[in-house]
Formats: sequence, structure tokens, C-alpha cells
Amino acid sequence: MIEFEQFLADSSKLVDQALEQLLPSPECEPLRLYAAIRWSLFGRGKRFRPALVFASAKAFGVEFEKVQATAAAIEMVHTYSLIHDDLPSMDDDDMRRGRPTCHIKFDESTAILAGDALQAMAFSAIANNDNLPEPVRIRLLVMIGDAASKMVAGQQMDLEAEGRDISIGSIEGIHRNKTGALIKASACVGAVVGGAPDVEMSAIMDFGEKIGLLFQMTDDLLDITESSEMLGKTAGKDLSSAKATYPSVIGIDATRKKIEKIHAEAIETLSRISGETGILKNIAEYIIDRRS
Amino acid sequence: MIEFEQFLADSSKLVDQALEQLLPSPECEPLRLYAAIRWSLFGRGKRFRPALVFASAKAFGVEFEKVQATAAAIEMVHTYSLIHDDLPSMDDDDMRRGRPTCHIKFDESTAILAGDALQAMAFSAIANNDNLPEPVRIRLLVMIGDAASKMVAGQQMDLEAEGRDISIGSIEGIHRNKTGALIKASACVGAVVGGAPDVEMSAIMDFGEKIGLLFQMTDDLLDITESSEMLGKTAGKDLSSAKATYPSVIGIDATRKKIEKIHAEAIETLSRISGETGILKNIAEYIIDRRS
Repeated sequence: MIEFEQFLADSSKLVDQALEQLLPSPECEPLRLYAAIRWSLFGRGKRFRPALVFASAKAFGVEFEKVQATAAAIEMVHTYSLIHDDLPSMDDDDMRRGRPTCHIKFDESTAILAGDALQAMAFSAIANNDNLPEPVRIRLLVMIGDAASKMVAGQQMDLEAEGRDISIGSIEGIHRNKTGALIKASACVGAVVGGAPDVEMSAIMDFGEKIGLLFQMTDDLLDITESSEMLGKTAGKDLSSAKATYPSVIGIDATRKKIEKIHAEAIETLSRISGETGILKNIAEYIIDRRS
Repeated sequence: MIEFEQFLADSSKLVDQALEQLLPSPECEPLRLYAAIRWSLFGRGKRFRPALVFASAKAFGVEFEKVQATAAAIEMVHTYSLIHDDLPSMDDDDMRRGRPTCHIKFDESTAILAGDALQAMAFSAIANNDNLPEPVRIRLLVMIGDAASKMVAGQQMDLEAEGRDISIGSIEGIHRNKTGALIKASACVGAVVGGAPDVEMSAIMDFGEKIGLLFQMTDDLLDITESSEMLGKTAGKDLSSAKATYPSVIGIDATRKKIEKIHAEAIETLSRISGETGILKNIAEYIIDRRS
């Protein structure tokens, strides 16, 4: 696993480098807006989605440089969603990525605008990426735009489901939109840029969908089993806000069994891809073994 | 002017048609999110930016059909900015486009998410527009993405300037970002799609910049001189929230004189464009004569 840890460290470095290049300098006006954006982007983030983008590039024979801006754009979209989800009128959270949330450190209007600006910058980053031909940029924009819309729909569904009895099917629907769509899109970036044949595109889409589910199920478990300090955000939050989660509906043991099953299926899909899928496999393992 | 009124009516119809095609049907889940989006989009909006897009298409010999999705996308970006600007932590407004604001009619979290979804859908609408070659779509995305970022920066600057003494230069800086950038981009759409020569591109950029300023200066005056009913939003708001405006810094008379001067300059720039600029000229007049 040392090789994989090195990959994670390298991929964090590459995405942070791209983010630095894409953001206005900290001396740009309005200072407070860009300070808030940097505060939220450069906390103790796992950079999970960018790692998935680079792992996908590896599997489809694409140089990392070509997907660097897209990895940064996806991290921007993810970060904007965290900032907005943490707002008082939504999940009302004080802690994120090991530090006070954006609206606590700054204020509510700055947090809303920081999220808004991040979303605009994300699409601009992909549109401006001269490393890729225009039709490829368009395919990425269509895919990530669609994921960003689904993410918002999922958050709305999640808020509406609070305190209500819902089926496991509905929970899956929420998560397929809220977190699954952007994770799936991240997994597909290498295939889009590398021009993967249909059969491999379909395989990576299946893989992305399954690890999206895995990610959410393990997230739900961690909320119960780990401390706030470990998670870098408030633990036990799902229960206190009566969130619809896998463990709350089917129980902890059944959730663990489902995780094993979907993990096996995810690994199986990789056999349909001819390239180097070792790191994608590591990522699937990393999701189920993680503590934060 | 009957011809111009017909043009405004036609352009409203074209943009509403495109919006209908781009939005998820009202039966899609989550119902409340899409209801909120429709509520905000289909109020008594002037559809000023779409009109500018179609007028620009006319000037550069581009069929309206080719810019219809872009006009809708720009109206989506504008509408998302209204929804977020009206939130309690920002301008805290109850009335917009002649009806209760989104967070009053629905709730705060739904309003934030409606704005977020509109921004994502706007970029998707341009990326998905099969009527245009991919390189043209990319140029539009770069231009409108940049304008969307500037708009957010301008709103932050505007909030920070509340209750503070600022120079006329700073006010212009705020408005060039907050409202000017998207208006300028709207004016340039036809030139980008029509592949205008550099000299005409530069002329329409100048025109767009000037009418952006005109629009804001008249907006500031209307806030003082017109009723809430006429405006469809709360009048007298700038004064009560100690907003930095042209009349508050240079006075009403000086603002009117500046409007005349910039209007003349805007008309002058049109002489550098060889196409049919009659409607662009009408739009400049419409801005300074409007009552809402």
C-alpha cells in the first residue's frame, strides 16, 4: 500500500497546484470573498474526488497534466456544496475539514457567495483548459454540469426526508444524486479524456456508481462509530438531525454486509477495463477501510 | 417604437420557450425545488438580458434559434443571483418581480438550492447546445463563466460597502462587476456566435460596458423615484440599507447628466458595427426611458 499512499499524496499535490493557479491571488479584491474560498478549499480535505480523477486517468492511459484542471474543478464543486450544506438553514454545522465552517469563520452572506463563486470558477476552469480539445471540454462540462444539478436535487431530497420514515430505495435515490453523481463523474473523467471504447466507458460508469454508494454507506457508519475529531466534522449528526441513513433504516450489520457485497461488485467491473486499474482497486479498498 | 415592442415580446417568448425546454418538468422530484425555480424564473421579469442577446444576434446576422439556449442560460444566471441576493443574510428582500421572493414563498434552504441548481443548469444549457459548434460553445462558456464570477465578486463588494463612504470610482467598480459583466456578456453573444471581426467585437464590448453602467444608474434613480408596485420589488431600499449608489454619492442631477453622456457614447460605439444595430439602439433608449 506504500505505492498507493504515495499516489494519494501526489494527487493531492497536483490538485492543490491546479487550484492555486485557478484561484485569484489572495491580494485580489474582494479580499474577504477569496479568503473564505481559500479557507474552505484548503482545510484538511481528503481530496477523494481528485484522487479518483487521477486514478481514472491512469486506467485510461491519460497523462495527469491533462486532467489536473478538471480534478480541481470537481473539488471546487464539492467544496461549494459543503459550504452551502453547512449553512444554518441547511445542515447547520460548525465544523468541517477540521476547522470552523465558512459561515462561522466569516459570515453567512460571504459563505453563500464563496460557494456561488466556486461553482462559476469550476465551470470556467474546464472551459478554459487549453490542454484538451474543445469537444472533450464540452463532454466534461456536460457530464459535470449534470452531476452538479443532481447533487443539488439530492440535497433538497435529503432535507425533505429529515425526520420522515423512508424506504431504503428512497435513501439510495437521495445518495445517488447527492454524493453519487459527482463521484461517478470523477471516475469517468479519464475515460472521457482518453476516448475509452463504449464497453469500457460502461464499465467505469458502473464502477463509479458502486463506489459512490460505498462512499455514502461508509460515511453513514463513520458518523456513528467515529469521533468528531477524527472526522473533522460533527459526529453523530445524522442521528441528532434524524437523517435518513443506511444504518438507521437497515441497521449497522446489514449495512456492513451490503458494503462487502457492493465492494466485490465494484472490483468485478474493473475486469472489463483493459488498462492499469490497480489504483482504482486501491481506492475501492480505501473507501471501506477509512476512518474519516 | 411598435416594432421594438414587438421585438421585446418576441424575445420574451423565445427565451421562455427555451427555459421550458431546459427545465425539468414540474412533475420531477424534488417537486419543491423545481417549483421554486419556476416561481423565480417566471415572475414579472423584464427579460432585459435575453432581449440584449437577441438584439446582438440581429446586429451580427445570427439566427435567433442559435442563441436561444444562451439567452435562457443568461436569464438563469441572472435569476439565481436575484434569489441569492434577496436572502435574509444578504439584501433581505420580500418582494421581487411583483411577487414574494423565493425564500418567502418557499424557505431559505430551498431558495439557496434553487439558485445553486439554476447556475449549474445554465452552464449545462450552453454546453449541451447542439445548434453551435463546440469551439463556439466553449467561447460562450468562458465569457459567461467569467461574468458569473465577477457578478459574485461585485455582490460581495456591494455588501461590504454598505454604510461606508466610498468614491464614485469604487461604485463604478462594484457595478461593473455586479451587474455590468453579465450585461456586457449578453451584448457580446451575437458577436461571438457570428464570429465578428476584432474591430466590431471591440465595439460591442464597449457598447455592452456602457449600457451596463446606464442600466445601473437608471436602476439607482428608479429606486428613489418609483413605487414598489411599479418596480415589482421594494423601492427606497438603497437608502434604507445605506447602499452606495450614484445618486447618493454624486446627487440626482449629476446622475441624470452622466446618464445622458454615457447614452450618447453608447450610441456612438454602434457606428463601428456594420450590421443592423437599430434594435441595440432601441435598447439603449429603453434603458434610460424605463419606469421599472
